[in-house]
Amino acid sequence: MEIKELLEKVKTGEMELSRAEEILKELPYENLGYANLDHHRQLRNGYGETVYCESKTAEQIEGILHSFQKMGSNVMGTRVKPEQYTYLKERFPELIYHPEARIIMLMDHPVEQVGMVAVCTAGTSDIPVAEEAALTAEFFGSRVDRIFDVGVAGIHRLLARTEEIRKANCVVAVAGMEGALGSVMAGLVENPVIAVPTSVGYGASFGGVSALLTMLNSCAEGMATVNIDNGFGAGYMANQINHLAVGAGKKEA
Amino acid sequence: MEIKELLEKVKTGEMELSRAEEILKELPYENLGYANLDHHRQLRNGYGETVYCESKTAEQIEGILHSFQKMGSNVMGTRVKPEQYTYLKERFPELIYHPEARIIMLMDHPVEQVGMVAVCTAGTSDIPVAEEAALTAEFFGSRVDRIFDVGVAGIHRLLARTEEIRKANCVVAVAGMEGALGSVMAGLVENPVIAVPTSVGYGASFGGVSALLTMLNSCAEGMATVNIDNGFGAGYMANQINHLAVGAGKKEA
Amino acid sequence: MEIKELLEKVKTGEMELSRAEEILKELPYENLGYANLDHHRQLRNGYGETVYCESKTAEQIEGILHSFQKMGSNVMGTRVKPEQYTYLKERFPELIYHPEARIIMLMDHPVEQVGMVAVCTAGTSDIPVAEEAALTAEFFGSRVDRIFDVGVAGIHRLLARTEEIRKANCVVAVAGMEGALGSVMAGLVENPVIAVPTSVGYGASFGGVSALLTMLNSCAEGMATVNIDNGFGAGYMANQINHLAVGAGKKEA
Amino acid sequence: MEIKELLEKVKTGEMELSRAEEILKELPYENLGYANLDHHRQLRNGYGETVYCESKTAEQIEGILHSFQKMGSNVMGTRVKPEQYTYLKERFPELIYHPEARIIMLMDHPVEQVGMVAVCTAGTSDIPVAEEAALTAEFFGSRVDRIFDVGVAGIHRLLARTEEIRKANCVVAVAGMEGALGSVMAGLVENPVIAVPTSVGYGASFGGVSALLTMLNSCAEGMATVNIDNGFGAGYMANQINHLAVGAGKKEA
Amino acid sequence: MEIKELLEKVKTGEMELSRAEEILKELPYENLGYANLDHHRQLRNGYGETVYCESKTAEQIEGILHSFQKMGSNVMGTRVKPEQYTYLKERFPELIYHPEARIIMLMDHPVEQVGMVAVCTAGTSDIPVAEEAALTAEFFGSRVDRIFDVGVAGIHRLLARTEEIRKANCVVAVAGMEGALGSVMAGLVENPVIAVPTSVGYGASFGGVSALLTMLNSCAEGMATVNIDNGFGAGYMANQINHLAVGAGKKEA
Amino acid sequence: MEIKELLEKVKTGEMELSRAEEILKELPYENLGYANLDHHRQLRNGYGETVYCESKTAEQIEGILHSFQKMGSNVMGTRVKPEQYTYLKERFPELIYHPEARIIMLMDHPVEQVGMVAVCTAGTSDIPVAEEAALTAEFFGSRVDRIFDVGVAGIHRLLARTEEIRKANCVVAVAGMEGALGSVMAGLVENPVIAVPTSVGYGASFGGVSALLTMLNSCAEGMATVNIDNGFGAGYMANQINHLAVGAGKKEA
Amino acid sequence: MEIKELLEKVKTGEMELSRAEEILKELPYENLGYANLDHHRQLRNGYGETVYCESKTAEQIEGILHSFQKMGSNVMGTRVKPEQYTYLKERFPELIYHPEARIIMLMDHPVEQVGMVAVCTAGTSDIPVAEEAALTAEFFGSRVDRIFDVGVAGIHRLLARTEEIRKANCVVAVAGMEGALGSVMAGLVENPVIAVPTSVGYGASFGGVSALLTMLNSCAEGMATVNIDNGFGAGYMANQINHLAVGAGKKEA
Amino acid sequence: MEIKELLEKVKTGEMELSRAEEILKELPYENLGYANLDHHRQLRNGYGETVYCESKTAEQIEGILHSFQKMGSNVMGTRVKPEQYTYLKERFPELIYHPEARIIMLMDHPVEQVGMVAVCTAGTSDIPVAEEAALTAEFFGSRVDRIFDVGVAGIHRLLARTEEIRKANCVVAVAGMEGALGSVMAGLVENPVIAVPTSVGYGASFGGVSALLTMLNSCAEGMATVNIDNGFGAGYMANQINHLAVGAGKKEA
Repeated sequence: MEIKELLEKVKTGEMELSRAEEILKELPYENLGYANLDHHRQLRNGYGETVYCESKTAEQIEGILHSFQKMGSNVMGTRVKPEQYTYLKERFPELIYHPEARIIMLMDHPVEQVGMVAVCTAGTSDIPVAEEAALTAEFFGSRVDRIFDVGVAGIHRLLARTEEIRKANCVVAVAGMEGALGSVMAGLVENPVIAVPTSVGYGASFGGVSALLTMLNSCAEGMATVNIDNGFGAGYMANQINHLAVGAGKKEA
Repeated sequence: MEIKELLEKVKTGEMELSRAEEILKELPYENLGYANLDHHRQLRNGYGETVYCESKTAEQIEGILHSFQKMGSNVMGTRVKPEQYTYLKERFPELIYHPEARIIMLMDHPVEQVGMVAVCTAGTSDIPVAEEAALTAEFFGSRVDRIFDVGVAGIHRLLARTEEIRKANCVVAVAGMEGALGSVMAGLVENPVIAVPTSVGYGASFGGVSALLTMLNSCAEGMATVNIDNGFGAGYMANQINHLAVGAGKKEA
Repeated sequence: MEIKELLEKVKTGEMELSRAEEILKELPYENLGYANLDHHRQLRNGYGETVYCESKTAEQIEGILHSFQKMGSNVMGTRVKPEQYTYLKERFPELIYHPEARIIMLMDHPVEQVGMVAVCTAGTSDIPVAEEAALTAEFFGSRVDRIFDVGVAGIHRLLARTEEIRKANCVVAVAGMEGALGSVMAGLVENPVIAVPTSVGYGASFGGVSALLTMLNSCAEGMATVNIDNGFGAGYMANQINHLAVGAGKKEA
Repeated sequence: MEIKELLEKVKTGEMELSRAEEILKELPYENLGYANLDHHRQLRNGYGETVYCESKTAEQIEGILHSFQKMGSNVMGTRVKPEQYTYLKERFPELIYHPEARIIMLMDHPVEQVGMVAVCTAGTSDIPVAEEAALTAEFFGSRVDRIFDVGVAGIHRLLARTEEIRKANCVVAVAGMEGALGSVMAGLVENPVIAVPTSVGYGASFGGVSALLTMLNSCAEGMATVNIDNGFGAGYMANQINHLAVGAGKKEA
Repeated sequence: MEIKELLEKVKTGEMELSRAEEILKELPYENLGYANLDHHRQLRNGYGETVYCESKTAEQIEGILHSFQKMGSNVMGTRVKPEQYTYLKERFPELIYHPEARIIMLMDHPVEQVGMVAVCTAGTSDIPVAEEAALTAEFFGSRVDRIFDVGVAGIHRLLARTEEIRKANCVVAVAGMEGALGSVMAGLVENPVIAVPTSVGYGASFGGVSALLTMLNSCAEGMATVNIDNGFGAGYMANQINHLAVGAGKKEA
Repeated sequence: MEIKELLEKVKTGEMELSRAEEILKELPYENLGYANLDHHRQLRNGYGETVYCESKTAEQIEGILHSFQKMGSNVMGTRVKPEQYTYLKERFPELIYHPEARIIMLMDHPVEQVGMVAVCTAGTSDIPVAEEAALTAEFFGSRVDRIFDVGVAGIHRLLARTEEIRKANCVVAVAGMEGALGSVMAGLVENPVIAVPTSVGYGASFGGVSALLTMLNSCAEGMATVNIDNGFGAGYMANQINHLAVGAGKKEA
Repeated sequence: MEIKELLEKVKTGEMELSRAEEILKELPYENLGYANLDHHRQLRNGYGETVYCESKTAEQIEGILHSFQKMGSNVMGTRVKPEQYTYLKERFPELIYHPEARIIMLMDHPVEQVGMVAVCTAGTSDIPVAEEAALTAEFFGSRVDRIFDVGVAGIHRLLARTEEIRKANCVVAVAGMEGALGSVMAGLVENPVIAVPTSVGYGASFGGVSALLTMLNSCAEGMATVNIDNGFGAGYMANQINHLAVGAGKKEA
Repeated sequence: MEIKELLEKVKTGEMELSRAEEILKELPYENLGYANLDHHRQLRNGYGETVYCESKTAEQIEGILHSFQKMGSNVMGTRVKPEQYTYLKERFPELIYHPEARIIMLMDHPVEQVGMVAVCTAGTSDIPVAEEAALTAEFFGSRVDRIFDVGVAGIHRLLARTEEIRKANCVVAVAGMEGALGSVMAGLVENPVIAVPTSVGYGASFGGVSALLTMLNSCAEGMATVNIDNGFGAGYMANQINHLAVGAGKKEA
């Protein structure tokens, strides 16, 4: 919920004054002791909030979800382990879990999905990271086209989908092992490519370093790279670019 | 020059038939033996062409420039050493050299600059890489705002410029040493940030690896990273995003 | 207990001669076979003793605790696993365990806390390491101000606490992932900053290497770095500096 | 010159109003285009200013020196190459150069040296880095005791100097190759040790990485580490600690 | 010259007995003091000999060339610097130098070239390493098809040559930067691919490590990798495979 | 089954038209959503298909096996965990499991084994990787000679088997720790050697990096290297070379 | 048992002819399929045999023990897990297990221990590796002096034992973390020092790499290094040197 | 000159009292400001002194040589550049330079060479490092057998020299690239092997890291390793072992 919208709701009586007060008094930060929550973004642009859950306790995540829920935000949690989900599901029955992507979502209100982001993987094993990217882009309001297992060792599988991929405003290329998907992709499309190396592989893949270096060293133009297995980061930036392209970006918002 | 434009010029008599033939017969690739030139992009979207000159001989660059010039393309060369420039200047008197950025430009026709890309550096020493990014974005048609020496060790210098930076459709953050500029920046603006680590530093900076890792591991949302010292790659992608935002991207083109 | 104090206690009859003998005859080292204990420090300056428990057996730790207890020392153990604690608690009922920081304390006498050390973290996940630093500084006699989750991706959270942080004689900055907290902090305060990289992160954080390199390469003045996750080392040195500042250091003690 | 002092000089007529105006109007930053100078520190605490000259042009350094000189600051430049010095000496005849440490100093007013910092090296080859540390500490107002070539392979050379080293409020331990000096030192003294790894060595020293790792992994208490060859950083922090100990720190300032 | 051939020449009087003796008495090794030459291979299979010249003095190379020349061998030297060539050319007027590939050849007798090896590069800058591979394969008796600048960022340039490449019994894929050429190639052809990473690139290419890792981690089947810039090794093995395929391998030899 | 064979079977009535249609209509790719299967190879050359099972779910592998089985292909799965096998065995009773090599095979028709590939190991611990190589080569139609525990620290064990090894058209050298087997082997035989580093070792073996580097840096001629523990890749390429040598390669097929 | 001894036993009737035959017929190697056992050493010099058990199955170790037992050898196994020991103990009731050092011994005949090897550790946590070294040296016939927890952070603990250490013909210095023990030791004694880095440590110790680099880069004379945690290798070589010094080496044997 | 010898010379009048006084008064260390010289060793055991000259100025080396010369020591300098030698030769006309090994020697008295050390290299390019080892061993009193270019890629060259190598009390194995010489050697001889990795190689040899890792990971028994290119260290330790074996070690001395 954005500030403008909040004020209008108060004006129209849709929101009680006391609730509006409660929301506004948390500004600029809500300090939970173990976490300082920034409620600015949601209020500024209506975007949802996200929580990186990897090394937080279930209790800490619970506190953060409560705080954002109270503010009327949509919230997405990443890197959520099944046991964390089980704990949280009991406290937030409306919580949704995507186990492959390890993502939870607690939706306050629906989000319209616009434009198009293409999320592609080199192999079957890269799908969990790709789903993290795809769900993130969808959470923030992008339509997503999933195109999986089109790695460069069978280049014709990729070429067969090129026209489809070119329709996206931004492409997310997810690949482990040699990680060459991004380079080939950036040479085929004209819009920006966000490359995500994955930790899929063994031996000299060094947990994704091989794919990361491949992507950083690409001689294809129009590609940038995020951290290994960082599907979230790629989905977030792809959504930014998609919204800029659609015109639903800062100019209109 | 785009294909549509070429055909119209033939139709209107602005271009002679023989010249049009010469251009079209090179399609799809022109093989110089040591290089296979792709003239598609220029014809498809009117963008200029670029040559990575680092490990090419001056003679090879000369051949490539001739080929693109013949096609009516603007051409930009990166990583050009002074002695390469001296050789080329004699053969292409209209050649322009930006020594700090090590860039040459051979312009066939002017390019309109639209929108806004902000190019920021952490320190004075990062300026050459930043200039490579800025000139690249300008070459491809973006307006650029240069904001230099605003590194995080003196955070108020950066905060003083935040409003200005927020006006850009895309931000390029150039930093060596600890490379923290990108993270802070991405937390301050809402549009995408392209982070460029530089090889500025000594000891455990390992030629830019420290800054690269900082950028890849940023917990700020909305940032992706290119190779160490790859100002060109950042400028190229910033231009793509800027054009998508301006609406002068593929939709209108 | 210091030597001077010991002798005075003998003189005043507060300590029996036989007990004083027992203490003094262990000088300079007590050899337990698997460990050579140095009782000098406690005797010289009344500081407590510490034991790194990571790869010691519970039996070995028990022996060391007994030996220090016998000497009238406060003892702190770091990197203590819950099962080690369970074993030791049965033998030392007065033992205190801080599970998040994995620290045990066996106190012979209270310690006055003076001056001020600020312990800050970039994120919630860095808190365990920060607690190790904070408890260590407290064990050795420093007052500690805990300021958590003020990472640079939301720079205003940190700026809001700057005045508070400046009051400390020494700042401990704990951060994983990109580890930029230290640089920004050192630019904001005038007293020394001890930076502690943590192993929080994934992918190209390489178990804390990314944060470590960021901190080593900081262009901010007035910062030095300890090993990844070494909250103990940072807390120890922060206490040294704090005591030098307070004047309760070696000159007066 | 501090603000208080400036105002008093105006009051007493020692400084003309126009000069005071010129100084104050630059606040908070002076933007030279390629550099944003922060004049706060000098005004706040009377400390001098420093410039990292490694990758700046001689012209850029000249501009920065002029700017600080105009403000009445002492200025020190680090990593100055002989040819940079030659250029600058012609423009600032009072400039002093320490070639071994690659440091220039442009002094506006003398600085009193108080307390004691010990700067030690393992070998003869580590002296240039040690001199950078020593000169930095002296520039900021610390007395320095230089103790060179006391590496651990001849441990008695170090033991012979222990009493002398213990008199310092802070010790800087400079060592390349195996870098063990810091560990032994921190075990011998009770005040903080700042360890500086140097790039002295060959083969598996990897340009100082071996010494850096040794220092980070020290099991001695009371030591922190700066970047490879970063004598400046160690000297700066040693001076901070020394001033805190002397009581000339922030409490009195 | 093979042993069988030597004996036949003696029998037919084509070779004098004294010359045959001189050759045979060097068996099995000729010890030059600084080098132990193995004349077995030439005698066993008529293949030529090779010398790695990188860190040998011109005098040492001269001695080795003389020794092989005396045995009637063809000799090829790799990594020969221009000044080494100048020295050697005066002593061996028939010496041939390929400056781009840094190869010298001293031919005793012509070698028939059979079958087909394809040597491909990703970019123009990879040509020197590719030439080392191509000349090596030719020296040992393979026909070579050179296909340069067909990197994956412009995948259609490669696809246009696929049929031609498939005709080879073995493919050498030479690429720096992201090094993805090998993977795509191995997916397109059915014969073995020898991948050669090159040190072309900058920043996170780490002198060829990026390309090396890409190649080692390829999920394409039928590819193996040699050291960075080791065109010689790839050309040698490609020739072995080509001869096995042609049937001029050990079975017929 | 190859296309020619398929058509002949239709012609002779051995295969029903509807079955042939089913096979052909999947061309060129069968998209299972999570995987794009390429049935070309089997149809082109009668080779079997392979599935890398490491990070696929048992359900995904089941789907892929079904698809290939339906096409009349032999299928081999690598890196299969016992629990995956248990799941699959219930659904494909004819499935064979080689637990040491972690390979499953689902055979539609027998494969003739020709020529000879030698698979050698340095130690007992390298046998699992060697078995992966050996079974792969056998799956694709090569005879295999297994020669285990002939590492270079007891060089006479290897020399005793040299004559036997020389009979192979291609040698696979599998070694962990110092990984020197490949170099010595390549110096002893004249046919190509595929070196496979294994992750056997501890400490500075870094999970196989030591052996990998040894193999890449070999000064022996005629060797190329695959990824750490990549027995499959080595077996595949050894089979390619063996078939080229036997003449059952593409020329006759 | 040595060959000479064996023949004498036959001559004197102490050994039956058939048993001697059985032993001799295994020469030079006994091939168990998964292992090629070298019985030469035992026969040549009466030394015992060793088996590296880390990645062997209990069944394989059993076979190897049987084979050596049959030959009358003493056998020692290293890196033996408790479950491997349990399996083996049932089959070899006389087997002895040293759990801390993970060593098993199966003794055919006693070994005289001569000379002196000193085995020292920096900390308590390094003892398991030190015990591996000490037991190895004892197994091969050296007397061993164990001196534990004398790390350099408390240098006086080491100095107090110097005279004792100097009596050894060879010193083994075992240390993790910063690994500086070796350097200090080599500066204190005149006989050779074998340094063993251990994987004790955390963070930037990188599993022992820090200690390894420290030891390799030592500027002390008279020290060489073995692999991380390789107590066996150090003990073996210390025994060799000790026997050379005692004169029970090859000259007398 | 040893202390006992000095006193005897005084007694016999061979040395003047004043000269003896001058020597003795420097004990224990002579502090040159930039260097603390330890004259103990020479006096204790008559061994010569050594100076590592790499990063010392010619003036500093001159001072050190003078100091040792004055004490009647033989002195050897390592890593001496030609220009350093030129400077020193003018001041010490009797100075000897070995340019390949970069060693200078300033001999006060001859040294008897006893026993035998074998110094072997894998290739011609490893000879400079081997010469540093050989000359060092000779300087300290060992006879040396040089056996060059016997690398494992031509294993028979090494086997042909095995008997000769076995005669040495200690073997120094010098190798770059894959560095396998040490492993094979240690398997062939029964006395200790000191392995020296060299920086010879390119690409993935990483300046000697490949050879270093090979040597550290050797599964051969009886080998330890020194730093890359550290011929001096290997020669020193080989001499120690050789003297222990000969009986000229500490027991007789």
